[in-house]
Amino acid sequence: MSKIVKQVEASNLNYVDSFGSKKNLKSKPARRFAILTCMDARLDPAKFAGLVEGDAHVIRNAGGRASEDAIRSLLISYKLLDTKEWFVVHHTGCGMEAVTNEEINEIFGIKTSSNINWLTFNDNKKSLVEDVLTLRNHPLVPKSIPIYGYIYNCSNGRLEEVQEATQAGQPK
Amino acid sequence: MSKIVKQVEASNLNYVDSFGSKKNLKSKPARRFAILTCMDARLDPAKFAGLVEGDAHVIRNAGGRASEDAIRSLLISYKLLDTKEWFVVHHTGCGMEAVTNEEINEIFGIKTSSNINWLTFNDNKKSLVEDVLTLRNHPLVPKSIPIYGYIYNCSNGRLEEVQEATQAGQPK
Repeated sequence: MSKIVKQVEASNLNYVDSFGSKKNLKSKPARRFAILTCMDARLDPAKFAGLVEGDAHVIRNAGGRASEDAIRSLLISYKLLDTKEWFVVHHTGCGMEAVTNEEINEIFGIKTSSNINWLTFNDNKKSLVEDVLTLRNHPLVPKSIPIYGYIYNCSNGRLEEVQEATQAGQPK
Repeated sequence: MSKIVKQVEASNLNYVDSFGSKKNLKSKPARRFAILTCMDARLDPAKFAGLVEGDAHVIRNAGGRASEDAIRSLLISYKLLDTKEWFVVHHTGCGMEAVTNEEINEIFGIKTSSNINWLTFNDNKKSLVEDVLTLRNHPLVPKSIPIYGYIYNCSNGRLEEVQEATQAGQPK
């Protein structure tokens, strides 16, 4: 058993010891919202947005992008589990902003004809607006759901709203 | 501004106030591992696995499935950001286990010829093993990375290892 596995299992036992009334939490998010954000290790959505267990769905991938899989998850979040508002949160210093698709292909030694879209971007605000619009314009996303766009600032922990993104995410 | 947005922004300001030395965290996960798990509101990976900001990548989608987007994220996690071990964590009472692809299509009123794969499953352990194998057998996943399979128990907070999954995820 690796050192990391031992540490994770030990931390988990501490969590189990203090689990208490969380055993009664329901599957539907109590506060009826979802956050789509990046997998970045510096981000803790529960901490930066004030969530306790049971509150909200959290979807994370490299970049916090509105990928097909993020859309799948958000649609399930809304339609099966009743969320009513969605946040899309990118962040400063994102690894996906530092590279291009071509560079990642090169790192992996795969031909640029590869059909993997790594979903890199070179303008954080622009990519955030794009992601909000991708969700807003998806045929299965209800027009009634507001979608908010934020950039998390890794240097101070602050969620900074990007008005253009939130504007693009207004209910239609 | 909605009640939820006000609450999230107020919680965030509290977080900013106590941010302190986290401003110096690096992009590469300090503990060099990644967790793929479900978006379920009851799960807080930082709490159940003992993470602090900067420790590990966390990738989340509906079901904690090894989707193409999760694979994209894990490949970036490994190759660009140096993670060395991956955990795949499903959980008890998952919404994706309660329904079929066909039922979700019906809920959305879309024809079953739709090409959305909702990634539902009807056997949690089996789907976990499948997800670990999908990662293990992906041509771009290095043979050296151990992949561990766990099911999080929503009734007590415990991470229960599924030996068959971890076994399937052994380095080759």
